[in-house]
Amino acid sequence: MGADKTDRNWIGFDLGGTKMMATAFDEDFKILSSERKKTKAEKGVESGMDRICETISEALDHAGIERKRLGGIGVGFAGPLDLDKGVIVDAPNLGWRDVPLREILEKKFDCPVVVANDVDAGTYGEYRFGAARDARCVLGVFPGTGIGGACIYKGRILKGDSQSCMEIGHMIVVPGGNLCGCGRRGCLETVASRLAIAAECALAATRGNAPHLLELAGSDVREIRSGTIASAIKAGDKVVEDIVRHAARQLGMAVANAVNLLAPDVVVLGGGLVEEMPDLFVEETKNAARRLAMKSLIDPVKFAAAKLGDNATVMGAAALVAEKCGKDG
Amino acid sequence: MGADKTDRNWIGFDLGGTKMMATAFDEDFKILSSERKKTKAEKGVESGMDRICETISEALDHAGIERKRLGGIGVGFAGPLDLDKGVIVDAPNLGWRDVPLREILEKKFDCPVVVANDVDAGTYGEYRFGAARDARCVLGVFPGTGIGGACIYKGRILKGDSQSCMEIGHMIVVPGGNLCGCGRRGCLETVASRLAIAAECALAATRGNAPHLLELAGSDVREIRSGTIASAIKAGDKVVEDIVRHAARQLGMAVANAVNLLAPDVVVLGGGLVEEMPDLFVEETKNAARRLAMKSLIDPVKFAAAKLGDNATVMGAAALVAEKCGKDG
Repeated sequence: MGADKTDRNWIGFDLGGTKMMATAFDEDFKILSSERKKTKAEKGVESGMDRICETISEALDHAGIERKRLGGIGVGFAGPLDLDKGVIVDAPNLGWRDVPLREILEKKFDCPVVVANDVDAGTYGEYRFGAARDARCVLGVFPGTGIGGACIYKGRILKGDSQSCMEIGHMIVVPGGNLCGCGRRGCLETVASRLAIAAECALAATRGNAPHLLELAGSDVREIRSGTIASAIKAGDKVVEDIVRHAARQLGMAVANAVNLLAPDVVVLGGGLVEEMPDLFVEETKNAARRLAMKSLIDPVKFAAAKLGDNATVMGAAALVAEKCGKDG
Repeated sequence: MGADKTDRNWIGFDLGGTKMMATAFDEDFKILSSERKKTKAEKGVESGMDRICETISEALDHAGIERKRLGGIGVGFAGPLDLDKGVIVDAPNLGWRDVPLREILEKKFDCPVVVANDVDAGTYGEYRFGAARDARCVLGVFPGTGIGGACIYKGRILKGDSQSCMEIGHMIVVPGGNLCGCGRRGCLETVASRLAIAAECALAATRGNAPHLLELAGSDVREIRSGTIASAIKAGDKVVEDIVRHAARQLGMAVANAVNLLAPDVVVLGGGLVEEMPDLFVEETKNAARRLAMKSLIDPVKFAAAKLGDNATVMGAAALVAEKCGKDG
């Protein structure tokens, strides 16, 4: 860290199961450049780490950042992490185990590295730069393929002992309900994730109740994406709209339960589904939560759609490493 | 605070709907004296505040504490509080509104006063002196007439904006279930509080399925106390035991949901029901939570019955005011 405190640049990195993104930021967290690659995790850890380093190097080069001005790298990742060690413990979506991500990047780029859960990083991004700027307590809920959650409490991510927590997707909202990917039944993900909604839509399409959806995507759950669902609603599939609104209300019940515990002042909703249908989700989730949570705790809560979209994780991760390096005080 | 830092004494005060208790502590939080009175809130605020001050004075006198050695007073109270101002906002169980408890006590005793939620204080007591000593993150759950919750995260009580939170009793565990005192349906309190259990037991007694309970307490919900329920089980009422075990499993589901969010390392169970049946509650709640929470989050959790009993709130409240006064750091 030879650079002056005030002019350091930062890298935010978003490592996903299918794609990765490296974004270079200036000292005020303005985006200078952004590089994407496919993850190609099936080619193995070594090749994958090479791609990660390559993507970061390209982002630095395209932004014209000299290595000595690189203050640090923040990485957001969706799988189980040892947060203290910066190790990917066991990532089923990559097929990787025990990968010392932080150590590898620190050696390669000779700078501090922070490895964080991607939803934690994304919610921290919204807290620092987006829809929940400087809130006392932010609850972030991101329905997508699964449903991620995070809580920033008085400026700090709520965490377990070296692992991420706030697993709102596995809150049981329908006791004895449908089977969840985690092996239990009735988790929020079984009723309000993109996959759960897609399965209900596929059923409706099969029954002939969602003609536009059927035309757009057929009845294969894997083909029914957030965008398809939104398009089918716009085209007039009332049943699809009912399914999504019901899912958003279930989300509202889980949010109500979490609000009763955590008393956030802002609830940020993000992720693929919300990006496609922000008004529907924010309205329906908010109304359900207001009905189901305690008045004194829910009344002060502001509901908002995430503002940073795909950049939330890289911005949050960059801000986390900058904070660790004392940029902010 | 004329006294030397190291030899200050503290008062912990537990203000309940029916009774109050003042306990005097030495500088090491050893109990020196303890005074109880009935609250008699119906006689009005002024008379009630007089009783509070009298009880504190008696505890000080009986412990032989000179006023100048009193470091501070910590108060735990069950109703809605403005924590920053130390004001009882609106207490249905007392019929009191807008009572500036902290201000009154500060003037009367000329020392710092902290006003806290009683379950927050009790859980803090268990964290400092009891079943969860020095844990990174403690979840306290206290099933009684209602069900209180609290979380001590890295030594600090998780709070809302000047109000208490962690309202696990109002987590919805049976969507569309029975009516709760809060006006909503299916809250944890409707299936696992002492009142909910008593109502089920009263039904069983009415049907002739709980002969011992019927003999001990009749079928009046208000007469069926935690002790009666425990006695009926000991006497052989299998149906009563089933009811209580089922309630403890429901409690376990709520605890599982909270563990998924907060990743505590210790869950402390306390309150009247648990005091009467600690093994049953800890075992059944733990087993249910282990089935229903995410493995990586629930595996490290230690379950324990509260150790401080009736003293938890006064000990925690005293420790809170001592901490505020810098005794500990």
